[in-house]
Amino acid sequence: MIAGIIGAAGYAGAELVRLLLAHRNITGLVLASVSRPGESITSLYPNFLNSGKAESNPALAKFGKDGATLTTPEACIAASDIVFGALPAGAGEGYAKLCLERKISYIDLSADFRFGDDEESYSAWYGKPWQHPELHQHSVYGLPELNRERIKERAAAGPCIIGNPGCYPTAVSLACYPALCKNGGNTCIQRGAGPVIADAISGVSGTGREPGRNNHFSECSDSVSAYKVGAHRHTPEIAMTAAQMAGHFVHLVFTPHLGPLNRGILATVYIPLATGTLSARPQSKETAEKEAAIRDFYLSFYKDEPFVRVLPENIYASTNRVRQSNYCDLSVHLDHTGTALIVESAIDNMVKGAAGQAVQNMNIVCGFNETEGLTALPALF
Amino acid sequence: MIAGIIGAAGYAGAELVRLLLAHRNITGLVLASVSRPGESITSLYPNFLNSGKAESNPALAKFGKDGATLTTPEACIAASDIVFGALPAGAGEGYAKLCLERKISYIDLSADFRFGDDEESYSAWYGKPWQHPELHQHSVYGLPELNRERIKERAAAGPCIIGNPGCYPTAVSLACYPALCKNGGNTCIQRGAGPVIADAISGVSGTGREPGRNNHFSECSDSVSAYKVGAHRHTPEIAMTAAQMAGHFVHLVFTPHLGPLNRGILATVYIPLATGTLSARPQSKETAEKEAAIRDFYLSFYKDEPFVRVLPENIYASTNRVRQSNYCDLSVHLDHTGTALIVESAIDNMVKGAAGQAVQNMNIVCGFNETEGLTALPALF
Amino acid sequence: MIAGIIGAAGYAGAELVRLLLAHRNITGLVLASVSRPGESITSLYPNFLNSGKAESNPALAKFGKDGATLTTPEACIAASDIVFGALPAGAGEGYAKLCLERKISYIDLSADFRFGDDEESYSAWYGKPWQHPELHQHSVYGLPELNRERIKERAAAGPCIIGNPGCYPTAVSLACYPALCKNGGNTCIQRGAGPVIADAISGVSGTGREPGRNNHFSECSDSVSAYKVGAHRHTPEIAMTAAQMAGHFVHLVFTPHLGPLNRGILATVYIPLATGTLSARPQSKETAEKEAAIRDFYLSFYKDEPFVRVLPENIYASTNRVRQSNYCDLSVHLDHTGTALIVESAIDNMVKGAAGQAVQNMNIVCGFNETEGLTALPALF
Amino acid sequence: MIAGIIGAAGYAGAELVRLLLAHRNITGLVLASVSRPGESITSLYPNFLNSGKAESNPALAKFGKDGATLTTPEACIAASDIVFGALPAGAGEGYAKLCLERKISYIDLSADFRFGDDEESYSAWYGKPWQHPELHQHSVYGLPELNRERIKERAAAGPCIIGNPGCYPTAVSLACYPALCKNGGNTCIQRGAGPVIADAISGVSGTGREPGRNNHFSECSDSVSAYKVGAHRHTPEIAMTAAQMAGHFVHLVFTPHLGPLNRGILATVYIPLATGTLSARPQSKETAEKEAAIRDFYLSFYKDEPFVRVLPENIYASTNRVRQSNYCDLSVHLDHTGTALIVESAIDNMVKGAAGQAVQNMNIVCGFNETEGLTALPALF
Repeated sequence: MIAGIIGAAGYAGAELVRLLLAHRNITGLVLASVSRPGESITSLYPNFLNSGKAESNPALAKFGKDGATLTTPEACIAASDIVFGALPAGAGEGYAKLCLERKISYIDLSADFRFGDDEESYSAWYGKPWQHPELHQHSVYGLPELNRERIKERAAAGPCIIGNPGCYPTAVSLACYPALCKNGGNTCIQRGAGPVIADAISGVSGTGREPGRNNHFSECSDSVSAYKVGAHRHTPEIAMTAAQMAGHFVHLVFTPHLGPLNRGILATVYIPLATGTLSARPQSKETAEKEAAIRDFYLSFYKDEPFVRVLPENIYASTNRVRQSNYCDLSVHLDHTGTALIVESAIDNMVKGAAGQAVQNMNIVCGFNETEGLTALPALF
Repeated sequence: MIAGIIGAAGYAGAELVRLLLAHRNITGLVLASVSRPGESITSLYPNFLNSGKAESNPALAKFGKDGATLTTPEACIAASDIVFGALPAGAGEGYAKLCLERKISYIDLSADFRFGDDEESYSAWYGKPWQHPELHQHSVYGLPELNRERIKERAAAGPCIIGNPGCYPTAVSLACYPALCKNGGNTCIQRGAGPVIADAISGVSGTGREPGRNNHFSECSDSVSAYKVGAHRHTPEIAMTAAQMAGHFVHLVFTPHLGPLNRGILATVYIPLATGTLSARPQSKETAEKEAAIRDFYLSFYKDEPFVRVLPENIYASTNRVRQSNYCDLSVHLDHTGTALIVESAIDNMVKGAAGQAVQNMNIVCGFNETEGLTALPALF
Repeated sequence: MIAGIIGAAGYAGAELVRLLLAHRNITGLVLASVSRPGESITSLYPNFLNSGKAESNPALAKFGKDGATLTTPEACIAASDIVFGALPAGAGEGYAKLCLERKISYIDLSADFRFGDDEESYSAWYGKPWQHPELHQHSVYGLPELNRERIKERAAAGPCIIGNPGCYPTAVSLACYPALCKNGGNTCIQRGAGPVIADAISGVSGTGREPGRNNHFSECSDSVSAYKVGAHRHTPEIAMTAAQMAGHFVHLVFTPHLGPLNRGILATVYIPLATGTLSARPQSKETAEKEAAIRDFYLSFYKDEPFVRVLPENIYASTNRVRQSNYCDLSVHLDHTGTALIVESAIDNMVKGAAGQAVQNMNIVCGFNETEGLTALPALF
Repeated sequence: MIAGIIGAAGYAGAELVRLLLAHRNITGLVLASVSRPGESITSLYPNFLNSGKAESNPALAKFGKDGATLTTPEACIAASDIVFGALPAGAGEGYAKLCLERKISYIDLSADFRFGDDEESYSAWYGKPWQHPELHQHSVYGLPELNRERIKERAAAGPCIIGNPGCYPTAVSLACYPALCKNGGNTCIQRGAGPVIADAISGVSGTGREPGRNNHFSECSDSVSAYKVGAHRHTPEIAMTAAQMAGHFVHLVFTPHLGPLNRGILATVYIPLATGTLSARPQSKETAEKEAAIRDFYLSFYKDEPFVRVLPENIYASTNRVRQSNYCDLSVHLDHTGTALIVESAIDNMVKGAAGQAVQNMNIVCGFNETEGLTALPALF
């Protein structure tokens, strides 16, 4: 199967290249760029250069004779069996339309197709309407742990559009799902009043390849700060997903930070509980037992998920242990009073938070093994 | 005046050395170490070496002829006019006692004297009782913004003991103070139900100089994770301080993280408000105005503080902008619904979070200019 | 085939685990540790944990039922078809002996088998004699680009011992080989008088997992320094290899540095040339042409090598472009006078500099495809 | 005295601001920018913001009422008693001319005035002629350790122009000076044939504040690479200075690298010696003694220098130990054969490599204490 990538010059696009080169069901790649057609992927990303003995890495043959040269989006769509769009918000709808017309599926890594048919939310946060509202009927929000069956159904009905989730929403939603899920069989988590708070930190690759002061090494190395507090566009996406999980509106507070790491998101999610003992004393034995019961529930909730790892007690979710992998690591904790469930959630923002999840969605859409191309284990260091 | 530092071989001790060398009221330093008497500070910290032309840096003359050699705590106390203890919890009480007997003040950077007379809290979290409970009558919790007058009073009454605050408690408490303060003149912040949540990240210098897996470059660089969730010993200290500010018990949730930076703490503090509009829409104009009013209140609340900077709109507290300085930078925000006050608080964990605040306390105790030795401006990069 | 790893708890061992899990000819792993038998690899390296749906990652089945538990070296050897030793110098000879007795090959990542039969060099630099000198007759220095045929011959003759090269020697030797090679067909590089100088910088993973001040984040982040100048033990290994390449003694100067990166070695190698124009003016046209000719020679010299990439003009060897891969990237330059050939050589110290090269050696020894398990392309970021 | 800074918006300019705020002979600052007049320094660098209690930091009063607002270069010159230019090559000559016309001295941090009257070298490397060749008669190359008396003489004769040295040239030249100096009283260093090789690595602040791919965190963090090999513009400056030191042409090879640190340059300088024993054995006792003798010579050579620290045996020059200070740390070594003198030289590229040295030059020009404003000791971490 031939996969097309529009936006291959950006970071998410380049990560798709890396993952699809190792994917056994993909036999060829067609790369495209809106702004840089004619350049080669290996001049933009010399990490993809071949060695003298070219045939020694058969994966690189997927670039084709001229495959390392970026083409136009239209030519890419014409030559592909499935297309990924790694583009800024608002840039992908037209390509999605072209794909459907060509009877092929389109996996969109921007925010354009993450809102189902709720154009009002999209336009309120993104400042513009949809260009092709009718397309959104054909789209599914591609968080497999939540919507796997819906994705399969939609794909079974013909070419489809997947709205690949944002990086923060992926980390936060997977942390919340067992606690919020109305049908999860949860008897140990009694939610209390108050908002769900998601405090998250992202690595700098999340700012993209365009150089700016926010990704200048001298201004972001050895430092941490928040940004867009109360205003980040992932807020409605997280809230929408939480509402789907819970079956009702969820009050969500979300604060993103930027930290001096390359890849990774760590989200700390606070979910208020109905019981506990308000005091300034250390955790009681009851609280420790409640924590263990909730951890067990998380384990059983995700027991069939290939990419979620609920960690044992005393192991904290850490971004370096999911680096370059599609895993989401979750560690489950209670505060000292037992009134706040605290879930630490770690993903690689470029993999489970972008390109890896897109490949996972492609695997589901195409009926491939869901983990194909995504089984490389993370290195710790 | 001669200052003594017990525990000069550790990071907080070395930072005290650096600051006191530049302090114009300190004419000599006597350095001590429990475990390494006989070694020289310049072999442990060659950054303090002199150049060929020794007299070109008069500050280094403060080491004295043999001053660069670490002595015993007892010899240090005997030779000093004021003593700093930068020691593990439980190790400093005896030295505090010796100091009082010698009629000199003792500034303790451990947790031993941070709990007033509440030995129960201390022993519940630190796992051991006090050795000299009577001493704690003479101690003050040295957060100048909260207790400046109490420190002055205690010092006016004779030699005293200062419990220098922990790094996280400093960042979190200064973020909370205007919102919690019962006498602050606050009319714009109406607190709502629910806990105050403090989510914080610290640089690796906070782990101290003892090498371990938690500070191994290959395991903590390019990564973020939480630790001691629900169990960090700074929890009761923050709760106690919040209660003093508010005049009543404050339910506090605290989650510490470790990040790949050298110095700095960034705390994100969530304070629930009584009003706001629950929705998944962007901030309303009313919310933006409320945010501006609260920022103005913070500005006026801290208008007489030399080391607190309430930042203008659109500038976020960032650890690199306080690096090597005694500033605490605060930026004030509301979530999109206007129901959560979010304060970002940045300090250098080794300065305002440890040695700098200790010098500030010394300045108050000794009647020096409170900012003496602490006016160096931070470099951005 | 079952592979055993003695020393799996260390960094090189863990990297072998990661690579061999992805190797299609390896069906099972037996992990051993001298100091930590009984512990599990997943408690030491939670990055290797499985998800809830264990069967979704078949690679992890290679750990076997109890395979994640570290056994003793002896048990490991007894259960394996080939054994890797990732141990300190002097610790592996006994295990090599056991392997040969069991008729299986042993790939040693320490320095013990890198010196052919030159025990004198080994003992002069490592401070101890060999325990089993007779074994060294059966060993080959495992730099495939230099010794591929010798490795094949030795393996064809029965179980063998491979002395896997050091990290610095790999980067430096591959940079030198075309210029030094007596039989390389080189007509464009006329060597001049003076030493070959290798100035190299390594990431911190090279210090191993044992925590120490040299790998403490706060002491090595944001800093660069040299170490063991004139005394690093890789010096004789590089000199010996250069002599083999050149067919005569090569005067080598080697200076290692430690830099604030996790993985990677960048070596800058200076080779004096016989011609050029001494001046302080920019490169002449002739010099630029000479540089291009030498680059072309490097390209043709390595044209059959699967893991050496000679980079085009204007692309510099950079450690991030080989990260987690087995590539050695070389960029070829002349100084402004044209009298010094300057080769930049980048490897991942843990892959081509250790575990990856060991797997490459296993592939050659066992007659597998030489690139099997090593074709994953590096991510740039 | 009022100091003007043209180019205050850049990194070197901002570092001058930081240093001059702490300088006791400077009573006011006038900041200027060619491209950003009208903006305030505190909006560009919020690290310079004041706290609520403005008077608590008298240094900040130096900004004046509107002093935080950047003015034009012409207005800056008109209001200042001395002017610093922190501008790109070719942009400062006109301002230098204006300063001399106003009878005030001009300290230039660009390359424009580093070449004495050798316009040919300048134009060969910088690709353009001088605009005001006559000015260069009035300039001195401001490396105080080499030219202190010449600077004083020139300043005694009236307003002057100082060509502040480049960052790499400072680190390399101070490493070489004792070994090359024709009048140094050197009897222990017998130079041999072959080039002086300077292999250096710089932190990312050296790329300036303009964002680009070379300073994008995701492309330079966790990585090292060379750049401009054989073509870096600091090459002729180093060669010219070496020739002044030696009294004859010195063949110099210079290779710059970029590393993942914020501040700092580490230069490794190789100087060939006439004697030694070519072998692949460890250092002999004679070599160790020769090394100690050369170290002693370096110590005595620099015994009157306030900012050069020749380190004791076993302490390596390290960039973190000079961070934010004006020190140049040198460690002296021999290779294992004793035929190559290897000097490690560490500076902060923004201080001794730029703004600090400029202040040192101002101190000399103005007759202030040479170390005024530059005595803050570096923190290790």
